[in-house]
Amino acid sequence: MDEFSLIDDLIAPGAGARDDVLLGIGDDGAIVRPPPGEDLVMVADTLVEGVHFPPQLPPSDLGYRAIAVNLSDLAAMGATPRWALLALTLPAARRDFILELVRGMREALAAAGVQLVGGDTTRGPLCLTVQMTGSIPPALALTRAGARAGDRIFVSGTLGDAAAGLAVLRRGVPRDPDAAQLLARFARPLARNALGIALRSIASACIDVSDGLVGDLAHVARRSGCTAVLDLAALPLSDALVATVGREEAGRLALTGGDDYELCFTVPPAQLAVLAGLDQSVRLTAIGTVEDGNAGTVVLQDESGVRRQPTVSGYRHFV
Amino acid sequence: MDEFSLIDDLIAPGAGARDDVLLGIGDDGAIVRPPPGEDLVMVADTLVEGVHFPPQLPPSDLGYRAIAVNLSDLAAMGATPRWALLALTLPAARRDFILELVRGMREALAAAGVQLVGGDTTRGPLCLTVQMTGSIPPALALTRAGARAGDRIFVSGTLGDAAAGLAVLRRGVPRDPDAAQLLARFARPLARNALGIALRSIASACIDVSDGLVGDLAHVARRSGCTAVLDLAALPLSDALVATVGREEAGRLALTGGDDYELCFTVPPAQLAVLAGLDQSVRLTAIGTVEDGNAGTVVLQDESGVRRQPTVSGYRHFV
Repeated sequence: MDEFSLIDDLIAPGAGARDDVLLGIGDDGAIVRPPPGEDLVMVADTLVEGVHFPPQLPPSDLGYRAIAVNLSDLAAMGATPRWALLALTLPAARRDFILELVRGMREALAAAGVQLVGGDTTRGPLCLTVQMTGSIPPALALTRAGARAGDRIFVSGTLGDAAAGLAVLRRGVPRDPDAAQLLARFARPLARNALGIALRSIASACIDVSDGLVGDLAHVARRSGCTAVLDLAALPLSDALVATVGREEAGRLALTGGDDYELCFTVPPAQLAVLAGLDQSVRLTAIGTVEDGNAGTVVLQDESGVRRQPTVSGYRHFV
Repeated sequence: MDEFSLIDDLIAPGAGARDDVLLGIGDDGAIVRPPPGEDLVMVADTLVEGVHFPPQLPPSDLGYRAIAVNLSDLAAMGATPRWALLALTLPAARRDFILELVRGMREALAAAGVQLVGGDTTRGPLCLTVQMTGSIPPALALTRAGARAGDRIFVSGTLGDAAAGLAVLRRGVPRDPDAAQLLARFARPLARNALGIALRSIASACIDVSDGLVGDLAHVARRSGCTAVLDLAALPLSDALVATVGREEAGRLALTGGDDYELCFTVPPAQLAVLAGLDQSVRLTAIGTVEDGNAGTVVLQDESGVRRQPTVSGYRHFV
């Protein structure tokens, strides 16, 4: 089997069929038609074996996850997902592996209405890069730069679950429902695209929590030129997480664990009522406030109002 | 040094400034504005150390090459290059390596007027994926599927040089000008974007020669449902190649050596005069003819008219 038949025989059939794709997989490039009058949002995320996922992650989950993390970046920008390219590097042509990988990718792509239009398949250490493009009307994109003093800080879902799920995965097959639930948070992150789109005219800044809440929120604080004050008691923790690792460790994972792919966003006071009126199935929790000064700083505040600096700023490569 | 400062401090300054880039490197995604009324062409190519390039390739050449191979895919489609994303996987944060890599990328990007708008930097075995997007007016894109019986087959530049250049690189520093010229063909391929754009309304099919002429032309023959007959005596060989490896090996490399990134295209008889009138600085050589039947076949014809099938169909991964 060579790269051409890999692509043609295994990947292409899962590529889907959007009206705005004029030429999909199989030529030197794909041809797509952008929606008139809209801007495009482009993202790319790489998953390297042993760095972003352990060898124990089943290939179907790996495929799902490679798509989901890119969907999450588009969600953080408020963009509507459209097209994806896959750069797949594999140590050897493992047909079963590729079929499972494609099955997981297809599930994530289909759920989001995204078409895989091209890419490249190469030999080498296991590594996947997905590039994804979405669209958004001009001037509506959410960035990290718009937070202002007085804005409330929100996060979707619960935090810390995926970091605990990764530990579960490394230990083997989970033995109880709580562990299985945490594992699923790592293996099959749910990108918050509907929420991101709903926030277009509500949020002042937005980021997805991929490297850990403190580290990601620091990006917002830095780009927005402000301080983010986090209310420690307000951090949304799942029952499964607290039951599995205890409340103290749960709090630590919620602050610094990566891979949750929830949206963290800021909302000006005037938009709070609009946010409250959103018909969303996703849990949203107010976890802090934006303040002036000390650009790029994240401060932790406990129930008695005592403030401290976090000691760990989240997962980073090369550290 | 972590991934964030790598991207922000080293890569971002080389990113350029196109008018149609509304938000570049530094957020969850880039925001670009597509040209009204045009379609987009999307390509992606991965370079893996030890597979697509040897460790001897200087990082500035690696950066140049990662951009050039994607420019070449856009050239083969006739698209105007616009935006690029870089997924860079590195074993460790090597500041000098990254600076050199970025320098080479910047040269290739600037020459083509392309802006680097985003990407991802991760830890792992050395591997680069570049995703690039270009634009083209509707229905003008060149594909592999349009060749018809009677069309003439052309190729730009000379063939086989890059394969010989790779051998030179593996042996060390070239000792003579011919070897240096061949090495440059591998290290710094020249994408034929101006030619690709000029061919929009002239060529019936087009592909870039990345895996070897026979293998790549077979893709055109297969997608176009025809046979490609190559005139062996017509293959354009550089003096440097013939002087370095001899005429017989030069001919073999021209047929099956990869990495030349020349354009191979077919032209209907009615368009031959238009092609001849092109104001092109690139050498174009007629190397064969398209015939009916045996879809996907490439046939080699020598000076006495004797025909045979090629025995090697070019470089392929996983073989």
